Amino acid sequence: MSQIIASQLNVTQMANGQAMTVPVYTIKGSNNGPSVYIQANIHGAEVQGNAVIYQLLEQFKQLDCYGDITLVPLANPIGSNQKSGEFTLGRFDPITGANWNRGYHFNDALPAQFAQANPDMAISEIVSQFRALIIDDLEQQKIDAPYGVTTGQFLCAKLQRMALEADIVLDLHTGPISSRHLYCPEYAKDSAVLFDIPHVLFIPQDFDGALDEACFCPWWQLQQAYQQQGRSIEVAVAAFTLELGSQEWLCLEEAKRDSESILSYLSHRGVVKPGLFTPKKMTRYGCDLKDYRTFYAPKSGLVEYLAPLGGQVKQGEPLVRMLRIDRYDHPDVIEVIKAPDDCIAILHFASASVNQGTELYKLFTNYFTLSA
Amino acid sequence: MSQIIASQLNVTQMANGQAMTVPVYTIKGSNNGPSVYIQANIHGAEVQGNAVIYQLLEQFKQLDCYGDITLVPLANPIGSNQKSGEFTLGRFDPITGANWNRGYHFNDALPAQFAQANPDMAISEIVSQFRALIIDDLEQQKIDAPYGVTTGQFLCAKLQRMALEADIVLDLHTGPISSRHLYCPEYAKDSAVLFDIPHVLFIPQDFDGALDEACFCPWWQLQQAYQQQGRSIEVAVAAFTLELGSQEWLCLEEAKRDSESILSYLSHRGVVKPGLFTPKKMTRYGCDLKDYRTFYAPKSGLVEYLAPLGGQVKQGEPLVRMLRIDRYDHPDVIEVIKAPDDCIAILHFASASVNQGTELYKLFTNYFTLSA
Amino acid sequence: MSQIIASQLNVTQMANGQAMTVPVYTIKGSNNGPSVYIQANIHGAEVQGNAVIYQLLEQFKQLDCYGDITLVPLANPIGSNQKSGEFTLGRFDPITGANWNRGYHFNDALPAQFAQANPDMAISEIVSQFRALIIDDLEQQKIDAPYGVTTGQFLCAKLQRMALEADIVLDLHTGPISSRHLYCPEYAKDSAVLFDIPHVLFIPQDFDGALDEACFCPWWQLQQAYQQQGRSIEVAVAAFTLELGSQEWLCLEEAKRDSESILSYLSHRGVVKPGLFTPKKMTRYGCDLKDYRTFYAPKSGLVEYLAPLGGQVKQGEPLVRMLRIDRYDHPDVIEVIKAPDDCIAILHFASASVNQGTELYKLFTNYFTLSA
Amino acid sequence: MSQIIASQLNVTQMANGQAMTVPVYTIKGSNNGPSVYIQANIHGAEVQGNAVIYQLLEQFKQLDCYGDITLVPLANPIGSNQKSGEFTLGRFDPITGANWNRGYHFNDALPAQFAQANPDMAISEIVSQFRALIIDDLEQQKIDAPYGVTTGQFLCAKLQRMALEADIVLDLHTGPISSRHLYCPEYAKDSAVLFDIPHVLFIPQDFDGALDEACFCPWWQLQQAYQQQGRSIEVAVAAFTLELGSQEWLCLEEAKRDSESILSYLSHRGVVKPGLFTPKKMTRYGCDLKDYRTFYAPKSGLVEYLAPLGGQVKQGEPLVRMLRIDRYDHPDVIEVIKAPDDCIAILHFASASVNQGTELYKLFTNYFTLSA
Repeated sequence: MSQIIASQLNVTQMANGQAMTVPVYTIKGSNNGPSVYIQANIHGAEVQGNAVIYQLLEQFKQLDCYGDITLVPLANPIGSNQKSGEFTLGRFDPITGANWNRGYHFNDALPAQFAQANPDMAISEIVSQFRALIIDDLEQQKIDAPYGVTTGQFLCAKLQRMALEADIVLDLHTGPISSRHLYCPEYAKDSAVLFDIPHVLFIPQDFDGALDEACFCPWWQLQQAYQQQGRSIEVAVAAFTLELGSQEWLCLEEAKRDSESILSYLSHRGVVKPGLFTPKKMTRYGCDLKDYRTFYAPKSGLVEYLAPLGGQVKQGEPLVRMLRIDRYDHPDVIEVIKAPDDCIAILHFASASVNQGTELYKLFTNYFTLSA
Repeated sequence: MSQIIASQLNVTQMANGQAMTVPVYTIKGSNNGPSVYIQANIHGAEVQGNAVIYQLLEQFKQLDCYGDITLVPLANPIGSNQKSGEFTLGRFDPITGANWNRGYHFNDALPAQFAQANPDMAISEIVSQFRALIIDDLEQQKIDAPYGVTTGQFLCAKLQRMALEADIVLDLHTGPISSRHLYCPEYAKDSAVLFDIPHVLFIPQDFDGALDEACFCPWWQLQQAYQQQGRSIEVAVAAFTLELGSQEWLCLEEAKRDSESILSYLSHRGVVKPGLFTPKKMTRYGCDLKDYRTFYAPKSGLVEYLAPLGGQVKQGEPLVRMLRIDRYDHPDVIEVIKAPDDCIAILHFASASVNQGTELYKLFTNYFTLSA
Repeated sequence: MSQIIASQLNVTQMANGQAMTVPVYTIKGSNNGPSVYIQANIHGAEVQGNAVIYQLLEQFKQLDCYGDITLVPLANPIGSNQKSGEFTLGRFDPITGANWNRGYHFNDALPAQFAQANPDMAISEIVSQFRALIIDDLEQQKIDAPYGVTTGQFLCAKLQRMALEADIVLDLHTGPISSRHLYCPEYAKDSAVLFDIPHVLFIPQDFDGALDEACFCPWWQLQQAYQQQGRSIEVAVAAFTLELGSQEWLCLEEAKRDSESILSYLSHRGVVKPGLFTPKKMTRYGCDLKDYRTFYAPKSGLVEYLAPLGGQVKQGEPLVRMLRIDRYDHPDVIEVIKAPDDCIAILHFASASVNQGTELYKLFTNYFTLSA
Repeated sequence: MSQIIASQLNVTQMANGQAMTVPVYTIKGSNNGPSVYIQANIHGAEVQGNAVIYQLLEQFKQLDCYGDITLVPLANPIGSNQKSGEFTLGRFDPITGANWNRGYHFNDALPAQFAQANPDMAISEIVSQFRALIIDDLEQQKIDAPYGVTTGQFLCAKLQRMALEADIVLDLHTGPISSRHLYCPEYAKDSAVLFDIPHVLFIPQDFDGALDEACFCPWWQLQQAYQQQGRSIEVAVAAFTLELGSQEWLCLEEAKRDSESILSYLSHRGVVKPGLFTPKKMTRYGCDLKDYRTFYAPKSGLVEYLAPLGGQVKQGEPLVRMLRIDRYDHPDVIEVIKAPDDCIAILHFASASVNQGTELYKLFTNYFTLSA
């Protein structure tokens, strides 16, 4: 019963002069609930989030939404359209190599300055004035910079401009070949169990250019700046990256399940009626970012991936079998490569042939069980 | 009980000066059986044939091989190593766009010339002298050409130089996302049921640059040239392209099954003891090349592939569901695209996002059942 | 004094749903002169033709144009926008490897059929009816094909649809690093001296998919079909490919000169006032297509190009110096590679590092002087 | 009169199993002079440094070299061989997008630890023990890491392992289309005038992953750590990045000049006889890294580069002319884009067609004259 307004946002121009646009769907909240920004497909090959946004739109239009909602599928028209062979080369700018999800803006001088200048400001004022400050800074530094910024930074700035208005930011990704997992900032640990996602990475407040960080870092550091002045405030914004399976893959039915997982979080947060959606019962595992280890190919060759995604692998159990058919006359023509530690296999490389040093698997090590 | 000799063949030099090599495994036949050439991975992403060659080597070393056998995995070191993003850009030369499997050589003037010059030559003489002629022509035109040839033509010539020595040539490929299928020249129709491959394409004698064509066209046209002179001879060489599943995928267990499928053909042909391996019982479907239709995306968007590979699809049944999330406010946000004719879906595109005009599916139409 | 009408033509949709368009500028002829179609940039990196179209537009708007003129710059929005590193990967479809300038349509059954069906038709009727026939065939086979066509074929069909309406077709290209040269069909030999282009390739009527061929082959074969019926008619359409220097390079001043070169041809043909522009005096050299030889790198390495573009090179004079710095301890660390025959160096490869088999130079051999 | 020893270093394995190697040339010093490491071509398209190494080898073999010298051309076999279209895609890993010159190692905890542990150690002991420490750390962290490292980090580690042995490190690069310029660490400001390079960037001690930084940062921070303990020592290692013109370009004659420029520095440092080579007289300009500004394309289109490389451009003078031929009917079809400040144009983008946000020019602003 919510109305969905469609519009198009210009985010760049291509060499032939054409403006490239991103579709933007907005819903006006009925009742002052938290505002939400949901984005998908900043990496061109990670299309499943678009199907999740489709399913969310199907739900929202039948629901009473209390807060403003902005949904942005196909967030990266350059990445979506950059084909190389049969696949989408949408992870990095083909000109510069810059990861499209590392171009967001964060000015780390602002939180401390603001807290010092406004030690006793009322919470609601803090939220609105600090938000205005970081939006203004984004516009000056990235959207209206006199020497310009890179294609990726400009795209990110246009998206971030919308995201900074929201209290809740969800960035929908996928891995290469991947099980579902969630990037959750440590301060929002309690929210991890509200999604139907069994594997959760807890991330510190370092800024490395991604959207979730660009949205929560200002507020997290603001909270800490007030903390240092002896005042305790909440972190006003929650931001998560959801990894919803594998790239180059679309499934509307799975997307429906993921939309319900998101609605269970939004329902808990009062964006839609609380209790309307509730998280599924499942064992959830957590891992600190420092223990999220990449296992790189110790040698090159052809790869059969053996460790099941989402599966717990004991130290010494097989990760991959490698075939080096150029060495049939050597004992290492077939070699099984084993897990160096107990771990959960979260994702693996998309191709069956690898160079030495290719990322084979990403693994939760020192993982732990989350209590609901 | 056969001895396998390993060697390396130089096929090109890269810009930094390094020679690129291809592994070559040879077995000396014990008893004058037909000679065999088996190659895999001329397209860089199609790695599964290497695993099939591994399983064949495992078998051959325990068998008595009557004919000479040459096995060439990893046939294209440039293609294997050309990565673009996480995938292998191994279908065409990244410099010229030339398909690596279209650089083989065929001089269509030779068969008629030879038949005219040698109308009454004994069959065994025909085979050895015509073989010498086409090998000599290959060397002059491609390996020792004064102006040189393209990187791909030189690679193909070095491989073809070996293949031309053989009575049986098998070129192991895969599709993008694909079911098993076989390219079989029309003159060798009876052999189609000797492989464990349920879908067979029958191809005419046109030369389009592929290895199988380059190996059988000279002999097929020679047979026809004698035919026109009123003399009936057999086509001396059989050559097939086997498509063994999907690219970017390796499975040693499936490879074992495919090695047995190949052995059932070789056993029938007397390369190993006849009867040692026999084809599996299965319904096999045939299709003429002219009825092998590509269905191109009538519009762009995100794709959920619905038609099952190897499955029979009736006219009007769904091929794909397309999501155009940029058009949520239009009725065509979701559209199911249907088969224009009764068909068998053989393979589909590897990515879930397509431009208008991208090859969505390849389909057998007007297909028929083969009798064993 | 001519009015220029601007419009946009949809030629494809990209994966994210966006329609890609090509700008089309048209001028309505004042006086029944020959109609003209001029296109540029079908290969994405070959941008200079756009500047030539700019300069032509600047001229046309001040002239009285007797015939209809259509100008299509930026003809390939996919190719223009396909960047890979700092350069434009615009020569072939990044998905299939298909050369963008090989997707045009020619149905070689039509000319003979038409001539047989209409042996005594009046010339003006032949031109209008045969034109209608080939346009209709193009639409059925390529624009409205039930299984669709490739992205490149659809793009080409949409462009060719416009080109088929014209009596004169000019396709503006560049080489990689290149001197100016002209592809001229043999039947239009006399026109070669009307452009200010010193090097001319004479091409036979084989169809290989390029625009010029797709425009002149139907008419050339029609003329020959009538010839075989004993009737002599003119080839009604002239089509040329102009190679105007190097790719990835733009110069408005040089473009002005090339626009005047084109105007001298158009003026001669009566598209604008005859005599208004006249060809420059220069020595022009011709070469038959079969004598246009590519010299491939006999080995890999780093290359210093020595033969000057447009310059006459004697047999045994240097083409390139190759540095193999991996072999400093060998005599071939530096090697000069020499011309195998007397020739004119027309173009060379764009990079200073090459694989074995890379196209180093393209050379006119057995060249001759054209008389004006 | 020095002997040059050639060897090959394995730096990675490609998917097909082939080891990729880097040529290494070493000269044993005769007289305890400073040791030198010179590398070229870590970015695959930047080939000119290989020619400079060739010319240095030609010189060194006729000279008495006092210190050990290691020369490593073709330092990146993956980058050199990664073609995409006619150009070399050698700036970043095609799989990950990681810049090949950002994978070097620096452990910023070591300098302070070492200085604290060894406050009074003799200088010669400091140099040998700290060198052993950082080499040992590199081996543990990158060469022998239990989970492995990326392809690029492993390559860099193998190169850095050699570079860390040297007192002088020169990393030879080029820009895209570029004038000569030098990256010089601020502490080595006096050396800037010893090269024949007119434009010098002074860089602070931040570590961003490049080879020069990875070589000087440990020693610079060690010097500062001792400083904080009240002890003054020299920075023991000098490291520079030399940008020697444009990529995809080779010229042995220009390389000879650059080899003499390098020899003038090495001669001053006592690697060869002091005074044997002396810097040319020229006006040299300096710029602090913070004032080295990139000017990004404010809109997309076709570009004619107007500001001359190495030339001084006044505020408001033209940088580029942009053609937007899709907008012939608009006033902005041609637009001149002007320098926002007084500057020297150091390099520009390699292609004539750009997206919005493409790096058009890199500019020295607030530049100053260096005194010799």
